[in-house]
Amino acid sequence: MEVIRGIGRMREFVREQRLAGKQIGLVPTMGYLHAGHLSLVQEALKACDVVVMSIFVNPLQFGVGEDYEDYPRDLTRDSELAEEGGVAAIFAPSVAEMYPPGGYYSYVDVEKLTEGLCGKSRPGHFRGVTTVVTKLFNIVQPDIAVFGQKDAQQAIVIQRMVRDLNMPLRIIVAPIMREADGLAMSSRNVYLSPSERKASLVLSRALNIAGELAANGERDANVLRKAIETQIQAEPLARIDYVEIVGAEDLKPVEILQGRILIALAVFFGKTRLIDNRIVEV
Amino acid sequence: MEVIRGIGRMREFVREQRLAGKQIGLVPTMGYLHAGHLSLVQEALKACDVVVMSIFVNPLQFGVGEDYEDYPRDLTRDSELAEEGGVAAIFAPSVAEMYPPGGYYSYVDVEKLTEGLCGKSRPGHFRGVTTVVTKLFNIVQPDIAVFGQKDAQQAIVIQRMVRDLNMPLRIIVAPIMREADGLAMSSRNVYLSPSERKASLVLSRALNIAGELAANGERDANVLRKAIETQIQAEPLARIDYVEIVGAEDLKPVEILQGRILIALAVFFGKTRLIDNRIVEV
Repeated sequence: MEVIRGIGRMREFVREQRLAGKQIGLVPTMGYLHAGHLSLVQEALKACDVVVMSIFVNPLQFGVGEDYEDYPRDLTRDSELAEEGGVAAIFAPSVAEMYPPGGYYSYVDVEKLTEGLCGKSRPGHFRGVTTVVTKLFNIVQPDIAVFGQKDAQQAIVIQRMVRDLNMPLRIIVAPIMREADGLAMSSRNVYLSPSERKASLVLSRALNIAGELAANGERDANVLRKAIETQIQAEPLARIDYVEIVGAEDLKPVEILQGRILIALAVFFGKTRLIDNRIVEV
Repeated sequence: MEVIRGIGRMREFVREQRLAGKQIGLVPTMGYLHAGHLSLVQEALKACDVVVMSIFVNPLQFGVGEDYEDYPRDLTRDSELAEEGGVAAIFAPSVAEMYPPGGYYSYVDVEKLTEGLCGKSRPGHFRGVTTVVTKLFNIVQPDIAVFGQKDAQQAIVIQRMVRDLNMPLRIIVAPIMREADGLAMSSRNVYLSPSERKASLVLSRALNIAGELAANGERDANVLRKAIETQIQAEPLARIDYVEIVGAEDLKPVEILQGRILIALAVFFGKTRLIDNRIVEV
């Protein structure tokens, strides 16, 4: 497995693979890999021959006061895990390689879909995501790219961007990977103190309760949201950022459950903001 | 020469050409071709094997009250001219093919460079241009694309977008083509009444005077601007939108001429807004 730092070499690697007739898959990550990331690699390997994983903590998608500086990084460990996982090349550019000094002016925005949920809590976040993902797509020119359902809004925004801008690749969304006790895997879980780690189980528990309510015939979104909020509020270490029940394609809030519904939440445990979600089909 | 309406067929055409080892050039236009457009095709043919010309009057880059509805269209004539000019395929999608019904949310913006000049007079114009050009690049995936220096700000904005977003192609900017009497070629010239057509010569004349002043050692941008404005104001049918003297790369207004300078202007003749420009090297 090759660790690539420069855009020029990354393009060359892909050109070589293409000349050898290979289909290329991209798994964009911010590194500090866990089993969730590796499941994205597995999904990619089902759909193409050669998987490139990008590892780039993108400053553009972090807001003021967010954890850009503190975001965990360990390229040595990541390289081992990626190689074991079947990655052919890691693309790990520096910030200066992606945003050269001398001014950066060009951005990709997806409107509407980025207004609510995490877009409301984190202004500018999705502009950072769509912009860097566009850059990565243009550098790697993959046939497919795999994103995780854990970041549900991100997956929908990226799919929309690809469709609207006719980007020449296919997006695959892979299911959420969870720890044995139910916590959705996230690089940010390392921030949690032992007591916060225990408290964080309330997220999957609350989503399960909402899922069961829906399975048992409850169609009032407010009832589901209240049930989730009640669970989370009972946990003293948890502070709700949002609990939203929205259409799974348009991300518009719903009153009555119908069709494909996304139940999404963001909750702080101390300074650590965790997100989780569940799709309900009615 | 093939006239292609659908994105799917366009992609297929390019795939076929690539398999045959051809390098692809794109000349994006809004049609109603003149010798200026055909000079872009010639530039493209110098740098690649197969030229695709897109013809699409992009509603997104027209503002309220602008000439989107009236913009001249003649695909039959354009097809003949393009074929004679060496174009291998015209891509002429419908508006619905480019912006399918059901909502369009994704945009590309280049900041700073789009604030002044035409960006100030035509809010949203460059967002429309960069967005549609991104779509065209993603559909055709050309090795090179050719734009005209006539739209000086557009050329600079596109070059910046390609660099910032790592788009995998090279931009070529081709010189302004002029009528024998000096008027810069433009599809909008057909709007001019005979008296306006005559009056429009003031643009190239004023730019020439400014060029001569600079060549003779004048370094005060205000003196050049005043000279241009005086010329144009002496023409009763002309109404100045802007006359700007800016750095040719950063488009920032300059006081003292130094380096590569862009003298750019936009002037109304009746309802018709014409633009012209001249580069001065000091």
